[in-house]
Amino acid sequence: MNDNRAFMAPVPLEKAYRLINHGPTVLVSARHDGVENVMAAAWACGLDFAPPKVTVVIDKIARTRELLERSGTFVLQVPTVAQREMTYQLGTLSLHNEPEKLQRAGAELLEMEGVDAPLVAGCSAWLACKLIPEPHNQQQYDLFIGEVTAAWADTRVFREGRWRFEDAPAELRSLHHVAGGHFYAIGEAFARPDSDI
Amino acid sequence: MNDNRAFMAPVPLEKAYRLINHGPTVLVSARHDGVENVMAAAWACGLDFAPPKVTVVIDKIARTRELLERSGTFVLQVPTVAQREMTYQLGTLSLHNEPEKLQRAGAELLEMEGVDAPLVAGCSAWLACKLIPEPHNQQQYDLFIGEVTAAWADTRVFREGRWRFEDAPAELRSLHHVAGGHFYAIGEAFARPDSDI
Repeated sequence: MNDNRAFMAPVPLEKAYRLINHGPTVLVSARHDGVENVMAAAWACGLDFAPPKVTVVIDKIARTRELLERSGTFVLQVPTVAQREMTYQLGTLSLHNEPEKLQRAGAELLEMEGVDAPLVAGCSAWLACKLIPEPHNQQQYDLFIGEVTAAWADTRVFREGRWRFEDAPAELRSLHHVAGGHFYAIGEAFARPDSDI
Repeated sequence: MNDNRAFMAPVPLEKAYRLINHGPTVLVSARHDGVENVMAAAWACGLDFAPPKVTVVIDKIARTRELLERSGTFVLQVPTVAQREMTYQLGTLSLHNEPEKLQRAGAELLEMEGVDAPLVAGCSAWLACKLIPEPHNQQQYDLFIGEVTAAWADTRVFREGRWRFEDAPAELRSLHHVAGGHFYAIGEAFARPDSDI
């Protein structure tokens, strides 16, 4: 069951970078003119703290790219170990030739007020982003920049400003793709003795 | 003991993206005019497969930034769990006011022929990069793009084109920084039944 809306809580914008600072594979979702899509992306990264910004690399063949270019809005979300087959399918199937891609992959969407893009239910964190148009980066490098306008996390696994993987069910851990469907989950925590977060 | 040169083997360029695809925190090293420095960076990411390219975000206060801007060369390397205190110190101390930064952090450097930047001994992987100058990205976003010109990995933990964390000592696992000295190590492996890597 993917519906974890009951555990979803806002994350303050100044802490939003922490949701992807550890390098998880993400899902990118967007909507334009009634068409919704979700794709997997391993190349997503923090870019700034305040206001928080992110980068994500999206190939020209991706239908999601066209949607976010037109709407100017996208969501990055952090899928879980429980969603690894869905994540793989969202990274492999194409809406161009699979109109039922989202259903086939098992992706359930949800809406948040003020965000003109769908969110994927069951993820551990969500970053709603406004596209900062940079045509040269987009055309030359397939590189997109977004400013984070709102963020949420599943409080079972991220609360009080940081991940709590070590106290949560293993199936909520983040995924880190290497290649060809070979993933790692995030692992053991190490905090410095004087760590203040 | 950081010296793992005996385990260091070249990685084919077409597989080099896999060295950072799982989102590790990296060390960035550079040299110019006899000055060498190393810094930690959580915001490093793949950008392209062939030729392999990477992005890395480097603040204007970082001395390493000036070195790589002038030399046009830098190395991204993947530090290990055994190096987490060194990684933290390399991310915290500044060469501007700590001339002995590298010694204080415990970083040992090594040289590879053809690379005009030092490598950090004891890491699990190294990507030598040629800066692709993009002044707007560098000035506006602190975002640097590099083309990978050579790569190496410690064969105990990366061989035959992919990470083998699950078969290696835990101290060789990659680090994934959240904030303030709070790290995760990479964890459990999940391969799809038909994965061919």
